Amino acid sequence: MKKTYLILLILLILSFVLIFLATSSVQANEPLPSWNEGKARQAIIHFVEEVTKQGGANYVPASERIATFDNDGTLWVEYPMYTQVLFAFERVKKLAPQHPEWKTEQPFKALLAGDMKTVGASGMKGLMKIILATHSGMTATEFADEVGKWLRTTKHPKFKHPYIDVIYQPQIELLEYLRANEFKTYIVSGGGIAFMRPVTEQAYGIPPEQVIGSSVVTKFQIKNGKPELIRMPKVNFVNDKAGKPVGIYEHIGRRPILAFGNADADMQMIEYTKGGDGLRLGLFVHHTDAQREFAYDRKSHVGTLDKALDQADKNDWIIVDMKKDWKVIFPFEMK
Amino acid sequence: MKKTYLILLILLILSFVLIFLATSSVQANEPLPSWNEGKARQAIIHFVEEVTKQGGANYVPASERIATFDNDGTLWVEYPMYTQVLFAFERVKKLAPQHPEWKTEQPFKALLAGDMKTVGASGMKGLMKIILATHSGMTATEFADEVGKWLRTTKHPKFKHPYIDVIYQPQIELLEYLRANEFKTYIVSGGGIAFMRPVTEQAYGIPPEQVIGSSVVTKFQIKNGKPELIRMPKVNFVNDKAGKPVGIYEHIGRRPILAFGNADADMQMIEYTKGGDGLRLGLFVHHTDAQREFAYDRKSHVGTLDKALDQADKNDWIIVDMKKDWKVIFPFEMK
Repeated sequence: MKKTYLILLILLILSFVLIFLATSSVQANEPLPSWNEGKARQAIIHFVEEVTKQGGANYVPASERIATFDNDGTLWVEYPMYTQVLFAFERVKKLAPQHPEWKTEQPFKALLAGDMKTVGASGMKGLMKIILATHSGMTATEFADEVGKWLRTTKHPKFKHPYIDVIYQPQIELLEYLRANEFKTYIVSGGGIAFMRPVTEQAYGIPPEQVIGSSVVTKFQIKNGKPELIRMPKVNFVNDKAGKPVGIYEHIGRRPILAFGNADADMQMIEYTKGGDGLRLGLFVHHTDAQREFAYDRKSHVGTLDKALDQADKNDWIIVDMKKDWKVIFPFEMK
Repeated sequence: MKKTYLILLILLILSFVLIFLATSSVQANEPLPSWNEGKARQAIIHFVEEVTKQGGANYVPASERIATFDNDGTLWVEYPMYTQVLFAFERVKKLAPQHPEWKTEQPFKALLAGDMKTVGASGMKGLMKIILATHSGMTATEFADEVGKWLRTTKHPKFKHPYIDVIYQPQIELLEYLRANEFKTYIVSGGGIAFMRPVTEQAYGIPPEQVIGSSVVTKFQIKNGKPELIRMPKVNFVNDKAGKPVGIYEHIGRRPILAFGNADADMQMIEYTKGGDGLRLGLFVHHTDAQREFAYDRKSHVGTLDKALDQADKNDWIIVDMKKDWKVIFPFEMK
């Protein structure tokens, strides 16, 4: 009997050794391989090591390790135009036969005629008309199917890959690194919540329930005997600028400890994140690489990064310089 | 060298045996010990076994195993009055010195005078005035602290235990059983999202980000140099009746496969859940136990269960009879 216990004990100890060896070999792989050594990479690794160090002054329990990421320009490409806007434009053309009134109604008329100057002049109000008209009038399931198909098949004009693949490899590695350290990773985007969810799991490993975004009003109704959610042509919530902390409160109910954006519209999310107690990390992608991606900031028509650049040092925000900090931009460069 | 491999192989096999033995001993514990054998318990266990049976006709991948539970009357006691309403009433008394106008303004005047008949006659409109006045005007953090303290210290008039403990033991076991089978468990309540979140992790093992409820408008602002969310006296969303599927879509973005309620106000959530493809389960708690808890249904002023009782058979909804189906009602009975 005594011998059996001894054998079991030895087996147990050896099991632990095996597990330890397996774990070490994983740890031996350096995290964030597509990030160049520099201030940004160091700040991230230092932060993660600090908040996960049990018994350390900056330790944060796993349940409170919430990290929030903007999407357009932070996780996927937003230049020369937000992907969702391009989707809406294409849908206007597709839906035009069912909308004879668009032949005379602006900005639809201009868009159908390819007169982008008039579309641009219609401003935010015109754009919202286009978004609402193309994002409503169907069930939630129908919209998700449509969007998913579009993002998997439509190619970015510069990179010639489907939009779902035109995402930043260093950020994919960062999301994985955070999750390996028991962070819960969220998207907090000004873009449509229903426009991102059909692909976030495949693209980023982020499930739909961890995606926060702008939304239209939806109504529950029985349609053809089936209980369905119908998307209405009315704005429900704009998850941008000061709306981002509000969306985080509503969806998560905890203050993030890490937030990553790329534009002035992400400042409030990062202020809110850094406003909590203890160690916090706030970062911005700076698009500085005209050759491998795009170079734009203060005067850009998308992802304007101006005030945040001026206030970064004072607020201890990390500016990630795409050209200097990222070895690789897209996953398809690695194949 | 060959010998080393052999030893390692043996060790590995034995490790698996050890792990298997450890796992089996867990599985040997029968699930749902506080549920009496009967139609409801059988339906739950059959459902969970079916959707987790790899390769089976009804298999559902873990990521889609979403279960949603109403809170008032489904997870915690709602009788003789919703806990949140009692909290609001007590807060009116506490805040009265700062609100001299309440001396003349209804329904505050009546409430402060203990004239509950007049308060009741003020209806939903009067109640909303009381809720909004007592749930706003502070930061999100201040409100959470206040609510958490109140729910941990204020005792239920009949059971003489703090509200946080007056929860249903069979449901706690069901939540744990579902999570052990890789379900994600959510609360989807008509009650305030911010009123439940401070205690759901402790009470039910459900983190704040898996709580969906009604909400007030919140505004992001810098208060005393600190970025904060301020709660406003304005309704943002009513997560009740047809609002429940809408709240689920907004927060989760997937259709649940199991939903559990206790009132007609949960019918839409359960219709939405059962409206998806494949095997689905919808359940209602029927409060039938006047002695151990309360007995109420069709004509009750809280948790009215009327139409759902009539339509249960036709829709294959499971009615859980508290008196017959539950061996134990509250966790404190087991100590």
